[in-house]
Amino acid sequence: MASSETATAHTSPASSSAAPSSADRRAARRQRRMVSPLANIPFKQRLTNPYKPFEVLSAEQEEQLHEAAMQIVENIGIRFLDAEACDIWEKAGAKVDHDLQNVKIDRGLLLELVAKAPAQFNWIARNRERNRLIGGNDVAFCTHGGVIFAQDMDKGRRPGTLEDYYNFLKLNQSCPVLHFTGDQLVVPHDVPVSYRHLRRTYGAVTLCDKPYMEAPHGRIIAGDAVKMAKIIFQDDITKWDSPVLGGIINSSSPLRYDDRMIGGMIAYARAGQVLIITPFVLAGAMSPITIASAVAQQNAEALMGIAFVQAIRPGSPVIYGGFTSNIDMKSGAPAFGTPEGAWAMAIGAQLARRYKLPYRGSGSLNTSKVPDAQAAYETMWTTWPAIMAHTNFIMHSVGWLEGGLTVSFEKCIIDMESLAMFQHFLGGLEINEATLALDVMAQVEPAGTQYKTHFETPHTQARYSTEFYSPFLADRDNYELWKERGALDTAQRANKIYKQLHEEYEAPPLDVAIEPELREFVERREKELVGVELYT
Amino acid sequence: MASSETATAHTSPASSSAAPSSADRRAARRQRRMVSPLANIPFKQRLTNPYKPFEVLSAEQEEQLHEAAMQIVENIGIRFLDAEACDIWEKAGAKVDHDLQNVKIDRGLLLELVAKAPAQFNWIARNRERNRLIGGNDVAFCTHGGVIFAQDMDKGRRPGTLEDYYNFLKLNQSCPVLHFTGDQLVVPHDVPVSYRHLRRTYGAVTLCDKPYMEAPHGRIIAGDAVKMAKIIFQDDITKWDSPVLGGIINSSSPLRYDDRMIGGMIAYARAGQVLIITPFVLAGAMSPITIASAVAQQNAEALMGIAFVQAIRPGSPVIYGGFTSNIDMKSGAPAFGTPEGAWAMAIGAQLARRYKLPYRGSGSLNTSKVPDAQAAYETMWTTWPAIMAHTNFIMHSVGWLEGGLTVSFEKCIIDMESLAMFQHFLGGLEINEATLALDVMAQVEPAGTQYKTHFETPHTQARYSTEFYSPFLADRDNYELWKERGALDTAQRANKIYKQLHEEYEAPPLDVAIEPELREFVERREKELVGVELYT
Repeated sequence: MASSETATAHTSPASSSAAPSSADRRAARRQRRMVSPLANIPFKQRLTNPYKPFEVLSAEQEEQLHEAAMQIVENIGIRFLDAEACDIWEKAGAKVDHDLQNVKIDRGLLLELVAKAPAQFNWIARNRERNRLIGGNDVAFCTHGGVIFAQDMDKGRRPGTLEDYYNFLKLNQSCPVLHFTGDQLVVPHDVPVSYRHLRRTYGAVTLCDKPYMEAPHGRIIAGDAVKMAKIIFQDDITKWDSPVLGGIINSSSPLRYDDRMIGGMIAYARAGQVLIITPFVLAGAMSPITIASAVAQQNAEALMGIAFVQAIRPGSPVIYGGFTSNIDMKSGAPAFGTPEGAWAMAIGAQLARRYKLPYRGSGSLNTSKVPDAQAAYETMWTTWPAIMAHTNFIMHSVGWLEGGLTVSFEKCIIDMESLAMFQHFLGGLEINEATLALDVMAQVEPAGTQYKTHFETPHTQARYSTEFYSPFLADRDNYELWKERGALDTAQRANKIYKQLHEEYEAPPLDVAIEPELREFVERREKELVGVELYT
Repeated sequence: MASSETATAHTSPASSSAAPSSADRRAARRQRRMVSPLANIPFKQRLTNPYKPFEVLSAEQEEQLHEAAMQIVENIGIRFLDAEACDIWEKAGAKVDHDLQNVKIDRGLLLELVAKAPAQFNWIARNRERNRLIGGNDVAFCTHGGVIFAQDMDKGRRPGTLEDYYNFLKLNQSCPVLHFTGDQLVVPHDVPVSYRHLRRTYGAVTLCDKPYMEAPHGRIIAGDAVKMAKIIFQDDITKWDSPVLGGIINSSSPLRYDDRMIGGMIAYARAGQVLIITPFVLAGAMSPITIASAVAQQNAEALMGIAFVQAIRPGSPVIYGGFTSNIDMKSGAPAFGTPEGAWAMAIGAQLARRYKLPYRGSGSLNTSKVPDAQAAYETMWTTWPAIMAHTNFIMHSVGWLEGGLTVSFEKCIIDMESLAMFQHFLGGLEINEATLALDVMAQVEPAGTQYKTHFETPHTQARYSTEFYSPFLADRDNYELWKERGALDTAQRANKIYKQLHEEYEAPPLDVAIEPELREFVERREKELVGVELYT
């Protein structure tokens, strides 16, 4: 992904700003007066969607897409560009052409393997209060990932650095409505490629206490990630019933998994960690142009990836991922936040339900260059269908700009507001005698004489500060007041909020035994990995 | 509504820029090279929602809200602040307290009256190709209405003028995805209050050919509107089976209709024209603070308004309107684009379906001061639930800012893009052998050798320019190209599009007999109405 490699000298993870002393933190806390309203959005251990899932497909159409995927795996096959993978497939009973590294499989066997995957599972966090159930009607929001450039209004757009990376981690930790710490939040261009993964995980678990991810890209990175997880959880987590680690696998569409992804799949699957199997299909480039075809292909690729994991370790946790959108036929660039992407998002969810699998979709996808109206409406064209369709794991739920090339600190804040609104929205509304309040209606003018308006009633007063979602970003003041306060647009207000959160950030507690052991591992591995080609 | 009355001299409607000569227009057309892509979005005579409606209420909750409304109308009653209305109610069999002007009614009688309203009807346009079916799974988009200030990036925010008004009409006509011409697009402060309605309708039918609205505010305005409709349609439209005219009625919540609204209701109902009965409930101010209570009250008020219309003229077309949102408890200002508003929108649709009535919701509601990210995400927090819940008539579907105090030309363009996207989205996707294209998959690498990528296949090439929604506003170019082109944000690009549309605007043909007759009516009435108090 990283195109401009501006790596600088080897620096110890401990020399970064990751872990200020706890005395410093306590002192800072005492001085503090304000606490950002964003940080006070309630954290919910479970967020469930009480509404019926939005579905695009009729039962017949769903059947057509299933049948098409079955024909693809039976008659065309999927390439697995890795000798070990071909052996695994052969042992599992698939028809393997070792020269082409092409795998065909009967639908019976495929579906039998897919059926071994759990319909839901618990993803364990180092702070156990942040464990997250994945599947069913649960919804979880994860950060951005796989991004090249960082952007804020003060410094503009630039290739990401480790400082940016850790700042995004801190921002994530400050936002209770984000449930997961993703990986590759932005490429840290000032860290050599060969050990970026170590710095990512080190930051993810020292600066945040949420369930976290690390990219399963090849056997080395994935192997290190599993070893670090063992240190973080101080146990052989590969023997646990529930995973503690996971990452995204993208097929190299059309109809292909490359060796890098396969290495990661094998390593995580053997360790029983989460694989989010996500075909990256852009209709018109990596599949036929029609969305029907793109999602049929997505379905074949996803099911083959999932079956592959189950062939390695039956019951290992997987998530059916959808990341199908379209190409912009004018520019040739990927398009996001489109009507076609909304269809694909909902169709993926419907298919995942058919196979009794958790579903991963996306949140803040858009192609705007700045956090403006287009960024916001395309984002909503992604997040609304994702939520409505019952997406369980929403990746990139904050921050995207520019088709995912850039992540903006201000856009993160803007998107967090919508996530907080969705959290409230999914909370559902209570209807009972107290909330219907017919007796109150009868007391207020014109029906009664006790109160002039509903502002004044004890019923309203008692619920004054808790009844409604209270925004931290939206400006609802009148025009004159808004102007008096500087006529700031949304991005400018978001910039202030981000800076306040940065000031107020506080690292979550970490068992004293863990950090030195983790640091030692990272420092040792960094020396070992100098100059090593990771993706084998 | 209009607070700053800056009326200037009486000017003839014909002196406005409403109707350039057709020779001028033809000449301009010849010179023209570009045609805005916005104007080329396909016009659809019907736009239907193929998906299941999104519902917030369980069956039991729906029953609770029905029951609550029944208790309100039976035990508390609704005020109808008009002597004639009280007489109408008494004749219909309701229990009327003439001193209080309070009406109570048994649920049996209420529901019997409501059942007389048509479940769907055809709203006739002067261009019959633009007639619109209202109800069922059909969706129609209408402009903004009831706005004080106009805003664009060139001239900033200012009290609206007749020129602004006519420019919004022209913009509406240029956009095929808007189906209705609303009224009160912006207050024309330079026109005396007593004949603004005449100028509104004159513009609406000379500058646009869509089905149109005129505010049924009092007997005089509504009466003039019916007379003008007779001229426009050159017939006694009050005897037609289908309406040609309509407008919004707001209750004066809580539990009250004022004389102005009642006058309009009586006039339009007697003429068989459309009444969109929309309680304007802000939870915490005009109803108890809980959304459960607010929608229960909305339900009682809406049903009483609808029953009143049916008592006047059984079968007269009505639309059940929902406009419930919440108060911002920090500023005391109305909040829009909120999770609570999204609930209320969907609940209104569900209740309207229960009573077999068409439903009116809203589209672009937000509280931002400029067309920025907040404006866009709050707008989507209104439009998405409106669409998903099967709203039939979407009012304010473009242009709002500042809680509806301001309408922005740029925001209109921004919102039109989302409407066009929804039009595509609701078109649904086809799944068949040709769109699944499994044969094509087998021809492209790695599965086949015929084509390197899907870009090149005849299947893609044949669908290249038609398969996807093609945006007129979203920028999908790469960062460098975007920068080279001026690094324009969405609002700046929208400004250019608006100006291009303004240049390219062409008035729709109008029967030569109509315009002079209409002008004569307007000129005569304007003289008659000087100094007249309209709202009686």
